[in-house]
Amino acid sequence: MAKVIGGMTLSLDGFASDPDGNVGRLYPDLESLAHTEMLQEEIRTTGAVVMGRRSYDMGDPDSFADSYEYQAPIFVLTHHVPAKKPKENDALTVTFVTDGIERAIAQAKAAAGNRNVILIGASINQQCLNAGLCDELHIGIMPVLFGSGLRLFEHLQMPDHITLEKIRIFEAGERTDLWYQIVH
Amino acid sequence: MAKVIGGMTLSLDGFASDPDGNVGRLYPDLESLAHTEMLQEEIRTTGAVVMGRRSYDMGDPDSFADSYEYQAPIFVLTHHVPAKKPKENDALTVTFVTDGIERAIAQAKAAAGNRNVILIGASINQQCLNAGLCDELHIGIMPVLFGSGLRLFEHLQMPDHITLEKIRIFEAGERTDLWYQIVH
Repeated sequence: MAKVIGGMTLSLDGFASDPDGNVGRLYPDLESLAHTEMLQEEIRTTGAVVMGRRSYDMGDPDSFADSYEYQAPIFVLTHHVPAKKPKENDALTVTFVTDGIERAIAQAKAAAGNRNVILIGASINQQCLNAGLCDELHIGIMPVLFGSGLRLFEHLQMPDHITLEKIRIFEAGERTDLWYQIVH
Repeated sequence: MAKVIGGMTLSLDGFASDPDGNVGRLYPDLESLAHTEMLQEEIRTTGAVVMGRRSYDMGDPDSFADSYEYQAPIFVLTHHVPAKKPKENDALTVTFVTDGIERAIAQAKAAAGNRNVILIGASINQQCLNAGLCDELHIGIMPVLFGSGLRLFEHLQMPDHITLEKIRIFEAGERTDLWYQIVH
């Protein structure tokens, strides 16, 4: 049964991007990151991706098929379907979902089979946490301080009702990844 | 030469206390915490404590001499010296400092000798970070979400100019401690 995996890489002060929307300082060495045990396991166990429109628009949508680390079906939650269909391949298809987070997760779970659904973007994470749809949180912590920017942990309706249990941690250079299970 | 060690135990969403000022969920098992390698090392290497008036007033000031984990000289930064002098012992003295964070740190370093000065309280940490007086940050992370409360990382003047390098991490149950060096 597919689990829904939330979380993001954050600055030590809790921001998923800096005040200008940049994430570069959270990923100083993408080449090394790609070879970490943590990301290799995440890639191996991911069967579908749910992302918000903001995350979808951040890069070139055609590049997902060529170079996205998760070569799996992507479900993009959006109010408006873009006119242009992005490039796809045998493993990576892009589906736009306009009828809410529950439907996006349901479709992604069906596509993922026995593998997991991974959540990309702060808003998608917040919506899933609020709807009780999230099974694990994988938080990467980088030792930088942004001071302001986009927070992962805000807009949560009852954060103190979310019970977390540590599963494991990973270390890779300056980066530390903390994986937690959400106790339902 | 004494190092100045900042940091606090935080919820996963970055709060040092919950909206009501409580910290109980950050320390669910004080008895076990006292026996962790991390706290034992912190105690062994601490030669003086600098705390804010808020931290000083949180408990019974007389209890420091009896049961505070850091049996070392305490320097309390305050605008007004309390009328009542708290209980002291051979190891633990309490000195009120009214002329600013630099003076408090200087006095604490002199008292600490070759051991370290530890910072207690969000405001004291922020003042030391802003004044460039902090050498390490020891951040404990507990998997609870408070939603709001007292933040450690705010009121920083140039957070993006603070360069951190990971020293080591400690794990103890649900708790994870991340120790960083501040590169001056």
